[in-house]
Amino acid sequence: MSTKHRKKRLNNRKAKKGKRIAITLGDAAGIGPEVIYKSLQDHVPSFPAVIIGSINDYEDKRVQMINSLEETGDKGIYFYHIDQSLIERDASFEYVKTGINWALENKIQALVTAPISKEKWLKSGITEKGHTELLVKTADIDNHAMFFWSENLKVVLFTIHIPLKKIFEHIKKDAIIRFIRFVSSELSQLFSREFIFLVSGLNPHSGEEGFLGNEEIDEIVPAIKVLRSEISIHGPFPPDIIFLRAKDIKDAVVISWYHDQGLIPFKLLSIHSGVNLTLGLPFVRTSPGHGTAYDIAGKGIANPSSMREAIRLAEYLISRKKE
Amino acid sequence: MSTKHRKKRLNNRKAKKGKRIAITLGDAAGIGPEVIYKSLQDHVPSFPAVIIGSINDYEDKRVQMINSLEETGDKGIYFYHIDQSLIERDASFEYVKTGINWALENKIQALVTAPISKEKWLKSGITEKGHTELLVKTADIDNHAMFFWSENLKVVLFTIHIPLKKIFEHIKKDAIIRFIRFVSSELSQLFSREFIFLVSGLNPHSGEEGFLGNEEIDEIVPAIKVLRSEISIHGPFPPDIIFLRAKDIKDAVVISWYHDQGLIPFKLLSIHSGVNLTLGLPFVRTSPGHGTAYDIAGKGIANPSSMREAIRLAEYLISRKKE
Repeated sequence: MSTKHRKKRLNNRKAKKGKRIAITLGDAAGIGPEVIYKSLQDHVPSFPAVIIGSINDYEDKRVQMINSLEETGDKGIYFYHIDQSLIERDASFEYVKTGINWALENKIQALVTAPISKEKWLKSGITEKGHTELLVKTADIDNHAMFFWSENLKVVLFTIHIPLKKIFEHIKKDAIIRFIRFVSSELSQLFSREFIFLVSGLNPHSGEEGFLGNEEIDEIVPAIKVLRSEISIHGPFPPDIIFLRAKDIKDAVVISWYHDQGLIPFKLLSIHSGVNLTLGLPFVRTSPGHGTAYDIAGKGIANPSSMREAIRLAEYLISRKKE
Repeated sequence: MSTKHRKKRLNNRKAKKGKRIAITLGDAAGIGPEVIYKSLQDHVPSFPAVIIGSINDYEDKRVQMINSLEETGDKGIYFYHIDQSLIERDASFEYVKTGINWALENKIQALVTAPISKEKWLKSGITEKGHTELLVKTADIDNHAMFFWSENLKVVLFTIHIPLKKIFEHIKKDAIIRFIRFVSSELSQLFSREFIFLVSGLNPHSGEEGFLGNEEIDEIVPAIKVLRSEISIHGPFPPDIIFLRAKDIKDAVVISWYHDQGLIPFKLLSIHSGVNLTLGLPFVRTSPGHGTAYDIAGKGIANPSSMREAIRLAEYLISRKKE
């Protein structure tokens, strides 16, 4: 190894010390605090993990309380307490806001968010509809995508929270090319490896040569043809078959056109291990695939796998990141 | 038991003798003949089962050849050979046509069809696009529906082979009411028991109170309200959640609005055991969920479970049917 390389590695190793993960507690009436606690019992990240929330809502009172991120050591679980009595808006909003600001100041390199209640945010006068909107607005980014990650299925959604009727106006060759290039570039940067893109059809049987819809012929296939010289991309495959195939192919990413096309199969296959990864941010952001799950909160029966995977993916991704 | 009851049971038992199942061989270049053979090795139906096809395409040459249905006994596997050299159109078409005619003459009570090639039908000048079209036309029925049946998931499709863009014009309150009434009535007749109908939303999160689409508020919910006094019906549930719930509820039937909303989850959960059941016919008709699977045909590796379940479901349904 050349001196230059060795020096670089040493620098990196030193730099690693400075990396941190922040975990927001989410809505304390939901299962967030429980799954965070269970996850960190199972697995202590190799970077300091700082929980942001109210300590009154967190079971493990032995965590190390800190008032500033400079107090974190090499490794371990820390708690940054925010006094709820001082907050007018829903407290979970403040936790996320704090996390995003730290991330933008590069004080943390990954943000893992436990579920919040969109209804509570709305009721307490918050204009952002959820995590993603808040992240996009605060980080001021042009492009973003919701990526759904699990061991056996990886799915990205081309359209997300719009009426099904509205998806058709978005499915245009140029927009598809831009989207897949963006996703591919983000994934390459994050994972330092290449993925295989499997493109779903939009219509039954991918349109059956136009008999069952034209979007494949008019927009999707032409986009794939352009992208073929740049990345590994295949399809379109019939929507009711593609997920069966993708789940057996390592590093396959399914391009889905609308919310339920991607999330029906993702939730069926990965309800307990699925992670959301937001693409397009200047930092790593993951969250578990589930919601607040009020119906089982406080009973001690919540499954922490999805949160644990969210923390693990965040950890894996920042361990690869050069500073 | 009263004499009257006993007499009725004896009559039924006697009547059962006359019932038969016909199984069409399908496209002989596909896996049809193989999965039929394997299924009948595993399980001999309690009614005579008559395979319709060319004996040259069928492995088990020990089956009993017949020239007329009157030759069948109480039980056993029979083969009705159709000489392919006499047929101008795709042979698999002739097998199905023969089966439908027998069923309409009440010579058989159930028809199980192995997969055909739609491309071959089209190329040999057949105007019907597939089994369903041929069944509907020959039986001359007004209403029909494709029902997907497996042990852990039961799904019916409100729209089937139309472009995704076209589904919205069909999702109207009155049409929904008519459709669900029809499905419920057919299932009651076939199974002599009641099912629980779980209605999917159409839009992400079932439209989120109109923010993500209006079909739930305008059409689906009003239809459910009307049906509530007649049948057990619930929903609409978010499309990405409903299948997770339904699979744990015995006798739950999911009402899906379009092809892939129902078939993405059905194929993921039941690819090897799923059965298609055509509702609306004057006889029982089932088929396996898979296609011709040319890629694995002739290798002896085809999984017969879906065909076996199709035969078993047909058998179960005609055993309940009074003559």
